[in-house]
Amino acid sequence: MIEAVAWKRRRMVLLVVPPVEELDLVAPVEVFGTANRLIHPGKPVYSVEVVSSAANGEIAGECGLRLLADMHYSRVEPDFDSVLVICGTGARLTRDRQLWNWLRTAASHARRIGSVCVGAFLLAEAGLLDGKNATVHWKYARELAISYPRICVDPNPIWVQDGSLYTSAGISAGIDLALA
Amino acid sequence: MIEAVAWKRRRMVLLVVPPVEELDLVAPVEVFGTANRLIHPGKPVYSVEVVSSAANGEIAGECGLRLLADMHYSRVEPDFDSVLVICGTGARLTRDRQLWNWLRTAASHARRIGSVCVGAFLLAEAGLLDGKNATVHWKYARELAISYPRICVDPNPIWVQDGSLYTSAGISAGIDLALA
Repeated sequence: MIEAVAWKRRRMVLLVVPPVEELDLVAPVEVFGTANRLIHPGKPVYSVEVVSSAANGEIAGECGLRLLADMHYSRVEPDFDSVLVICGTGARLTRDRQLWNWLRTAASHARRIGSVCVGAFLLAEAGLLDGKNATVHWKYARELAISYPRICVDPNPIWVQDGSLYTSAGISAGIDLALA
Repeated sequence: MIEAVAWKRRRMVLLVVPPVEELDLVAPVEVFGTANRLIHPGKPVYSVEVVSSAANGEIAGECGLRLLADMHYSRVEPDFDSVLVICGTGARLTRDRQLWNWLRTAASHARRIGSVCVGAFLLAEAGLLDGKNATVHWKYARELAISYPRICVDPNPIWVQDGSLYTSAGISAGIDLALA
């Protein structure tokens, strides 16, 4: 398996919509970073690109940390492997048609697209979860199910795969999803 | 206890020396942020100031994340409550006399000073752990003990308090220390 992933570096695009729950973002970053250190030290098997909807590239954290995106999402190069959508509870009600268009296009090209915690609301608003099985942090499961009745929401699993779509439960579930 | 901490906001200074292990920093940030949300919503009991030795304020993460400091450590206002020293394995051998001077002065004024994981090497190099009981991630305990023979290093506890000095074991132990 190590050899199987070694010959092609996988581009993981982390799409961050602020204000972000810091741990939702850092958890997958740590998983991919640790995998890089363990599998082939000095020869990363994952490249991680943090892209954001923030106009100036500065990502506000819900606990007050300030982070920097590598670029605006509209500038990301195509041919990425996976997209992971990450936000925070305050950003779950974002309305951004340009972003939804980008997400739908990205979903049609990427091998996988997923969300950490309430990032599922953004996939849902983009229409990507219609008719799909999905999960989210249990505290937001009812709100997701009521707001988007076409989604089959199950608050119990740590993460759910439905085809190329992945959703995960609260915060640390992002670690489990990144490991999946 | 809630009333006891409510009447004075505690200034927590997180001193970050890059490259930082992202989770070493985010773990205490999440603990203080969550405490703020739970104890008095809308009326934070902790203020968190991320200060750094990075000249331009940009903090590189060991897993590739980029973060922003609120200011250079030399500009932090006095009268803070606690200082927590955070770095990464690559920054544990930092040599910076100005920083050690600042740390010694800070330690003489702050109610508490502590480190997450290999941040103990920075406290040690500043001379603050001489004659003290301390801990660090088990993988670095021998190196710390050999490099600084005046420190009584115990790799077993999650965190150690010796007077106003606190040290903690690897990464997630920063959560336990912040809760202490």
